[in-house]
Amino acid sequence: MEPTLQTIREAAERINAFIHHTPVLMSRSINQKAGTAVFFKCENFQKAGAFKMRGAANAVLSLTEEERQRGVATHSSGNHGQALAKAAQHVGAKAYIVMPETAPEVKKKAVAEYGAEIIFCKPTLEARESTLSRVIKATGASFIHPYNDDRVIAGQGTAALEFLQEIVDLEVVMTPVGGGGLLSGTAIAVKGLSSAVEIIAGEPEGADDAWRSLQEGKIVPSASPHTIADGLLTSLGSKTFPVIQRNIKTILTVSDQEIVQAMRLIWERMKMVVEPSAAVPLAALLKNKTHFEGKKVGIIISGGNVDLGKLPF
Amino acid sequence: MEPTLQTIREAAERINAFIHHTPVLMSRSINQKAGTAVFFKCENFQKAGAFKMRGAANAVLSLTEEERQRGVATHSSGNHGQALAKAAQHVGAKAYIVMPETAPEVKKKAVAEYGAEIIFCKPTLEARESTLSRVIKATGASFIHPYNDDRVIAGQGTAALEFLQEIVDLEVVMTPVGGGGLLSGTAIAVKGLSSAVEIIAGEPEGADDAWRSLQEGKIVPSASPHTIADGLLTSLGSKTFPVIQRNIKTILTVSDQEIVQAMRLIWERMKMVVEPSAAVPLAALLKNKTHFEGKKVGIIISGGNVDLGKLPF
Repeated sequence: MEPTLQTIREAAERINAFIHHTPVLMSRSINQKAGTAVFFKCENFQKAGAFKMRGAANAVLSLTEEERQRGVATHSSGNHGQALAKAAQHVGAKAYIVMPETAPEVKKKAVAEYGAEIIFCKPTLEARESTLSRVIKATGASFIHPYNDDRVIAGQGTAALEFLQEIVDLEVVMTPVGGGGLLSGTAIAVKGLSSAVEIIAGEPEGADDAWRSLQEGKIVPSASPHTIADGLLTSLGSKTFPVIQRNIKTILTVSDQEIVQAMRLIWERMKMVVEPSAAVPLAALLKNKTHFEGKKVGIIISGGNVDLGKLPF
Repeated sequence: MEPTLQTIREAAERINAFIHHTPVLMSRSINQKAGTAVFFKCENFQKAGAFKMRGAANAVLSLTEEERQRGVATHSSGNHGQALAKAAQHVGAKAYIVMPETAPEVKKKAVAEYGAEIIFCKPTLEARESTLSRVIKATGASFIHPYNDDRVIAGQGTAALEFLQEIVDLEVVMTPVGGGGLLSGTAIAVKGLSSAVEIIAGEPEGADDAWRSLQEGKIVPSASPHTIADGLLTSLGSKTFPVIQRNIKTILTVSDQEIVQAMRLIWERMKMVVEPSAAVPLAALLKNKTHFEGKKVGIIISGGNVDLGKLPF
């Protein structure tokens, strides 16, 4: 069932003891550049380095005792895979993470460190899905989709809930959009608390399927996306699109160059490590300043997991 | 007059409204690696990105009205120069910053942005000192030395004061050591509050003049230092050495490779941008774990000003 503000409140209570209540930070020099007050909800400081911990924790902590014993499974070599592995470890459940053989060593290592079982597959969508099906059939594990899952969406919505509890008079809330888990959870939480708050998503030009989907009124799959924001390559899902379509009027797209500039600004001025995907909303704001003039803006910094050996500076 | 705990308390009051009270952060995975509890006082989040803001602010806010009107001067293209420029701007005083022509553009720009006047000189110690003398003679500006100045030392000591007010039961406090301003200010504050707390400095092997000075019982100048920790190239001063000699038993040296590893650990696990100098104490701790076993360790993270275009990863 589609999450509601109430579901998100319950998720917040469920995951409360496990997740970090991340700080909200500001930067005077970024405010000057933006021409308005910008508040950053820092999910890069979240456990496992990204907001994905919230959705994964809510999903795992929602399992029945029987489901828990059979474990959880997903296909993600990114932040969701790590978060799910960590959440499963926390409750003593087995996690099966399907990953392409070609995934970077650092990601394999991170998932393995959380005690998950990695199942390698060929680096194609088909191999990924068939391998996952096989694992689920063999183990009875519950599939926890990275974003197209009500429990995950509700969990992601808890970041916005905390954010608006701390900064009560935000007028705009911004997130990046990939599969739409964070954006749809945020939309439900924010609109539930105050219908007057505007929600704006930032999206890379090279993976602008959410923008296209809003234009066309239906899910337009992400076809051969190409962007440095590697957390935003996926397409919207059947559970995230309707929420986004109902609540979001504006998706602003930005180039990779604009993303890198905004990322660098956050690193230099705020001394924070953020991943490219996390810098997309600030890039969108700086590109469209007049839209935000005089408004109190909240940005959810989605994560800080970057390969320091491959920085774009 | 050599600063005392009382002087440092007065400095804290003087600069209170101007500086940031920086957060103390921890990392579970760094604790695991260190085998003990490590608390980080994050001066990388300080104004102008380093603890140097404290000493510069205390010096500038201690000026008489007449001195203030004549302005302040220093030779430093690094954190002290930026901090002094910013502090002077805050009180409407002129700042004259002597810099080698060869200083990186980014540093020239940062100082200029704070409204300081930059005076260029040839990149030699002699040119630097003669240029500074000339500027002071011509303007009557007060020379604010980067570390060999009682007001500066007292200001730097306020970081440790805040630290021990927040984490009252620290057993060891660590800082890096370059000219010794932070280390001597920390020693006075910490020993004044509790003589039982041990103070340990970390120093790069390639700039181990403080370690040598302690061994030989006199100031051994830093001769052709070579290290990635570019904030720690200077020699101890006549005001910092006696304090250090009286209060510090242990200086631990580390290689550049160990510094970069510790720096990377902080970036990856804490999602914080810290400069190489700031990672020296953690590198020293990780190299000498048995010394710290079971002790609550506090590390002052000195700063976060790095050129993102020239990272050692």
